[in-house]
Amino acid sequence: MDLLKLARGNTVIKFDFEPEVEEPVLVEGLPGIGHVGKLAAEAMIEDLGAEKFAELYSPYFPPHVSVNEDGIVEVMRNEFYVYESEGDEPDIIFLIGEAQAQGELGQHEVTIRILQTVKEFGTEMIFTLGGLGTGTVPTEPKVVGAATHKELIDLLKEHGIEVRSGDKGGNIVGASGLLLGFGKMMGMKGVCLMGVTPGHVIDPRAAMAVVEKLSTILGVEVEADSLKKRAERFEREFVAQLEEMPSALEEAQQEAEEGKPEEDLRYIG
Amino acid sequence: MDLLKLARGNTVIKFDFEPEVEEPVLVEGLPGIGHVGKLAAEAMIEDLGAEKFAELYSPYFPPHVSVNEDGIVEVMRNEFYVYESEGDEPDIIFLIGEAQAQGELGQHEVTIRILQTVKEFGTEMIFTLGGLGTGTVPTEPKVVGAATHKELIDLLKEHGIEVRSGDKGGNIVGASGLLLGFGKMMGMKGVCLMGVTPGHVIDPRAAMAVVEKLSTILGVEVEADSLKKRAERFEREFVAQLEEMPSALEEAQQEAEEGKPEEDLRYIG
Amino acid sequence: MDLLKLARGNTVIKFDFEPEVEEPVLVEGLPGIGHVGKLAAEAMIEDLGAEKFAELYSPYFPPHVSVNEDGIVEVMRNEFYVYESEGDEPDIIFLIGEAQAQGELGQHEVTIRILQTVKEFGTEMIFTLGGLGTGTVPTEPKVVGAATHKELIDLLKEHGIEVRSGDKGGNIVGASGLLLGFGKMMGMKGVCLMGVTPGHVIDPRAAMAVVEKLSTILGVEVEADSLKKRAERFEREFVAQLEEMPSALEEAQQEAEEGKPEEDLRYIG
Amino acid sequence: MDLLKLARGNTVIKFDFEPEVEEPVLVEGLPGIGHVGKLAAEAMIEDLGAEKFAELYSPYFPPHVSVNEDGIVEVMRNEFYVYESEGDEPDIIFLIGEAQAQGELGQHEVTIRILQTVKEFGTEMIFTLGGLGTGTVPTEPKVVGAATHKELIDLLKEHGIEVRSGDKGGNIVGASGLLLGFGKMMGMKGVCLMGVTPGHVIDPRAAMAVVEKLSTILGVEVEADSLKKRAERFEREFVAQLEEMPSALEEAQQEAEEGKPEEDLRYIG
Repeated sequence: MDLLKLARGNTVIKFDFEPEVEEPVLVEGLPGIGHVGKLAAEAMIEDLGAEKFAELYSPYFPPHVSVNEDGIVEVMRNEFYVYESEGDEPDIIFLIGEAQAQGELGQHEVTIRILQTVKEFGTEMIFTLGGLGTGTVPTEPKVVGAATHKELIDLLKEHGIEVRSGDKGGNIVGASGLLLGFGKMMGMKGVCLMGVTPGHVIDPRAAMAVVEKLSTILGVEVEADSLKKRAERFEREFVAQLEEMPSALEEAQQEAEEGKPEEDLRYIG
Repeated sequence: MDLLKLARGNTVIKFDFEPEVEEPVLVEGLPGIGHVGKLAAEAMIEDLGAEKFAELYSPYFPPHVSVNEDGIVEVMRNEFYVYESEGDEPDIIFLIGEAQAQGELGQHEVTIRILQTVKEFGTEMIFTLGGLGTGTVPTEPKVVGAATHKELIDLLKEHGIEVRSGDKGGNIVGASGLLLGFGKMMGMKGVCLMGVTPGHVIDPRAAMAVVEKLSTILGVEVEADSLKKRAERFEREFVAQLEEMPSALEEAQQEAEEGKPEEDLRYIG
Repeated sequence: MDLLKLARGNTVIKFDFEPEVEEPVLVEGLPGIGHVGKLAAEAMIEDLGAEKFAELYSPYFPPHVSVNEDGIVEVMRNEFYVYESEGDEPDIIFLIGEAQAQGELGQHEVTIRILQTVKEFGTEMIFTLGGLGTGTVPTEPKVVGAATHKELIDLLKEHGIEVRSGDKGGNIVGASGLLLGFGKMMGMKGVCLMGVTPGHVIDPRAAMAVVEKLSTILGVEVEADSLKKRAERFEREFVAQLEEMPSALEEAQQEAEEGKPEEDLRYIG
Repeated sequence: MDLLKLARGNTVIKFDFEPEVEEPVLVEGLPGIGHVGKLAAEAMIEDLGAEKFAELYSPYFPPHVSVNEDGIVEVMRNEFYVYESEGDEPDIIFLIGEAQAQGELGQHEVTIRILQTVKEFGTEMIFTLGGLGTGTVPTEPKVVGAATHKELIDLLKEHGIEVRSGDKGGNIVGASGLLLGFGKMMGMKGVCLMGVTPGHVIDPRAAMAVVEKLSTILGVEVEADSLKKRAERFEREFVAQLEEMPSALEEAQQEAEEGKPEEDLRYIG
């Protein structure tokens, strides 16, 4: 791989192998609010045994390396995984990673390179996964959605997914938004599934709710036992904490409702 | 449309059709202080039945998509509308949108692409619309102006528009400013009309005042009933609120007068 | 002038005429701490009757236009003036303007374009003018200096200018610094003259002190009556204010000494 | 040297002479947390009599010049020094400087240019030096490490260096991280040695600890008398200060433990 391309400001995708897929759907789960999308996509990759086939490097990623649990460093990257279906369910390309590109130019550059890549594999449908930070804990796990086309809005409703209405300046920030918007301009369709989450805390419960909705829509079987356990632990511990400190939640909610403009609460990543 | 141009940092304009116009004036109403310019331009477009003929996309727009009231996502864009006059009034090209380009390079890039485009249609005159945030509520709706040439300052005075004197570092920020400045360098003339507004609140009253001045100058009939109603409601509710909480206004004014440097108050967008 | 060059990220210099000069010294007075350099250079231009011969435009300038006292807008620019000497004193090219380029790339781009330009006119010596914010008011107007070469440090001392010793991380920020540093790399020599100033207030007294030192060094006669009057008024009013509110000064000094790291105090612009 | 390359956004390396080296190891000590890496590398350069052979200039460096103790200005740069070994120890290329490149693009550009350069000299092994800010003072000087490959983790353990486990989002920020990560992608191996330091204070004690570990690993003899004295003074004064104001340390520790997210504490530069 020619690193000088990076130095010249280009995003580069390096392939391990060429996946054999037919009209694969793209499922994106990059870091964002509550790491909801990231946890959801990682759980599906693990459960389906999807295989990594490419890595994306960009000079717009944050300028640090990660250190893993063994003390080994790795540069920031996004990774493409493939699930080659053998049944009726669709082939799936997953996009995950430790970081999103920074800044306007970075986000546009990386998004368009990703779309270009999956377009070549025949992708016509995109699912982006994220969290919808509301400052409150929903009593039941809840998933809301937005889409590129009217017929997909109908699909969301059929699956009991509340439609995210953007009448007060609702935005979808980052890759989860741009992949849909520019995918639409390239002739693709797409849906964003957002797990409702308090925000500012990693939320496996919201991620599990997203996994359940998406696997039903795609017709794939996903147990996600490990994520399910984390979700249950989260529910126990978080609720316990709230019962011990009800005022803390109230404060958080109040702050969320008053202290910040409504748009901020509706940040989706 | 070739999205790779965006990934390479270029702003792209996509035409739906080529408008048939003669020396059309450009009217800009992008988001800014109090959304005054945006509301004013949108009301005129609606009232005149202007038609969208082109869209502008830029990698310098904020990296999110908007979600409309039906849950449908759209990428950030600016839009060109045309009013093809059949009488004595001039043809008009409107420029509106949900966002302005970010950063120095972005603002310069997008401004120059817009000017290039309208120059090709023969534009010689530009009106940019915005709000002038003062931290206080004017007792009567009030419009102030600035211009590229002395004779347009005279025109402003003839129409009872106070001339914005920049003796203490007055600036016009963003598209409303750069379109005039660089338009002037390309041989065009222009005026900025600014509705005086408290700032930090969407102000249909100031927008209506701008619409009235501009439609008189252009010689077009604009009722803008919907905006007028919003303006009246704003006046009722805002004034009522002020009467109930006079100290709140005083605080706001005091903060505006003391807490911020004078230039900030004179921000125009 | 081709504005598309700006849209492509380039700085452009537009000439009104080609000055007839021999080894002209460059005197830079762009906005910075206390506007000391700007006031000093403008006063010298006025007094010497220097003539504008070129304008510099950059997409890295802040994205706004200025509004002058008549309500006329102008894009941000830097301006070159020339004083064509008829006696023994050197020819002088002045660089002034309303803004400095923003960001690392912007500062480097604009600095190098300026140096390229004056190099072609034969410039071998550069004077950059600025303020040295100390948070305190010097009892006597005071000028300190730094230079590119040892022999110029000697020159400063001969003229009673204290040498700015950077042993604790002293930096010269922006054009006043980069013009010297990169000018040195292009074979030029240079000096930065800094009027000591409280900071956060426009300081004509410090500017007048800089004018006096520089005109002596260059051997030009500059009265600068207008600046001198402003300096005297500043001294009267500021000192009066301090006598009425001694605690205010103490607070300011204390804040300056404790609240900020030493480097900040030594900001020079 | 062609400065226009800088204006066009390129990083440039200027050679004084071509060093005669065989598989030289790269040792990086740019400014960062506690200036630990910088102090350590500078001490080794001095002690080994390493010689400067190249300078690196970048338009992504902070836009200021430094002023040295004699009042002489210099542009920001990174410097390459070489220690040409005559014994069994390896040849060493040191990289030091006053600044790191700013922003994502800047960090990537400069890192890759550095790697390109040392690759041409045959470098296969990189040591990056930095501080690990923990908000607490370790009772004994302590060095922790991370590496690009498993066998180097073993090497760290052999030398009594604790392995930095990144299970909670540990990152290595800036050149110390990117040189390892992208070096690995170019086929090199590397280690980051981090002296544990309170953070927000220049820490010669931590730097001395890094020097001792690195010189043992490399098999070079380094006395670093001057740094050792600074380290001893630091220990005396810092500990004395802590004994006089124990609450200050407690506060600092508490702030470090509670007030900031864990990732921040683990910032390494």
